[in-house]
Amino acid sequence: MEQRFSGEIMQGPVAENARRPTLGEIGINQFAPYLMNRIMARWNAGMAKALEAHDMSIPMMRALAILSISSPVTINELSAYAVTEQSTMSRTLDVLEKQGLVRRERRREDKRIRDVSVTEDGRAAFERVWPMMHTRFQALFDGVEEDEYRAFIATLRRMLRNVAKLPA
Amino acid sequence: MEQRFSGEIMQGPVAENARRPTLGEIGINQFAPYLMNRIMARWNAGMAKALEAHDMSIPMMRALAILSISSPVTINELSAYAVTEQSTMSRTLDVLEKQGLVRRERRREDKRIRDVSVTEDGRAAFERVWPMMHTRFQALFDGVEEDEYRAFIATLRRMLRNVAKLPA
Repeated sequence: MEQRFSGEIMQGPVAENARRPTLGEIGINQFAPYLMNRIMARWNAGMAKALEAHDMSIPMMRALAILSISSPVTINELSAYAVTEQSTMSRTLDVLEKQGLVRRERRREDKRIRDVSVTEDGRAAFERVWPMMHTRFQALFDGVEEDEYRAFIATLRRMLRNVAKLPA
Repeated sequence: MEQRFSGEIMQGPVAENARRPTLGEIGINQFAPYLMNRIMARWNAGMAKALEAHDMSIPMMRALAILSISSPVTINELSAYAVTEQSTMSRTLDVLEKQGLVRRERRREDKRIRDVSVTEDGRAAFERVWPMMHTRFQALFDGVEEDEYRAFIATLRRMLRNVAKLPA
C-alpha cells in the first residue's frame, strides 16, 4: 500500500470552497481508524486463540476483567464496559454462573435490576489468564517508551469522548 | 471506572522475581487495547449506520476504499487490507460485481489467481461516501493537533508491526 501523504491531515472542518483531501491523498496508512481496525482485529484474534488454552472466550475474559475491578455492576453497565452485546453478555454470564465464577442477584431496593458480581473463583480465573495478557500487551508496545505510551493514552481518551458525541 | 494507576506501565519484560502489575493497578482506562476496542466498536457501529443511508455495508465500503487506492489486487490481499474475512469478502464482491462497482478477472499468466479491480462507478460510489467518512474522522480527532496526530500514527504503525509478530 503506497504512501502518498503530503499536507495537513488535521485541517479543521472543510470550508465551503476548500478541497477535501481524498483517502488516497491522506494515505490509508496515515488514516488512524484503518490502522486501529487492523491492529485490533489481529490483537483480538490472537487473544481469542490464547484464551482457548484456558477454556475461556473473549466475552468471558472481558466480563471477569471488568468485574475484578468493579463489582457489583448491572448487566447493562457490564455489556457497555466489556464492549460486548447484551445478548452475548447474558449467555456469557449463564456460563460463568454455572462455573461459579460470577453471581447474579436481584437488587433489594429494585427487583427489576440484577447486579452481577465476581466470586473468589472468578477473580482467581482472571488472575490465571492475566500474565499471558500482560505479556502480549508488553509485546504489542515493544519499543514504545513510557512518555510515548502516556501521550498515546491521552489521545485515545480524547477519541473516546469524541466518538461518544458522533451522530449515529 | 476508577483510576488507580501509579507507577510504570511500560516496564520491560517481567523479571523472575519482579511483581507483575495487576489490571486494577494499571487501571483499565490506561490499558490501551481496552480503550481501542471501545473506540472502534463505537466508531464501526456509527459508520455502519451512516453507510446504510448509502445502501452500503462496512465490507463494501472497505473493499471500495482499498480498490480506489490500489487496484487490481487479489482477493487474499483485499481481505487482508480490508480487515474482512475471506468468505465475507467473496460475498461482498458478488454484490459489488452485480452492481457494476468491481470487476473480477482471472490472471492471464496464472488462471488460479483472480484479480479484483474497481470500475469508474465503483470509484464514484466510494467518493460519494467519503465526505461523510472524512467529517466523522475529523470529529473523532476533534481537538487533536497535527503533531499529536503524527505521534499517534507513529505509535500505531509500531503496534501494527509488533502485533504481526505476536504468537497466535
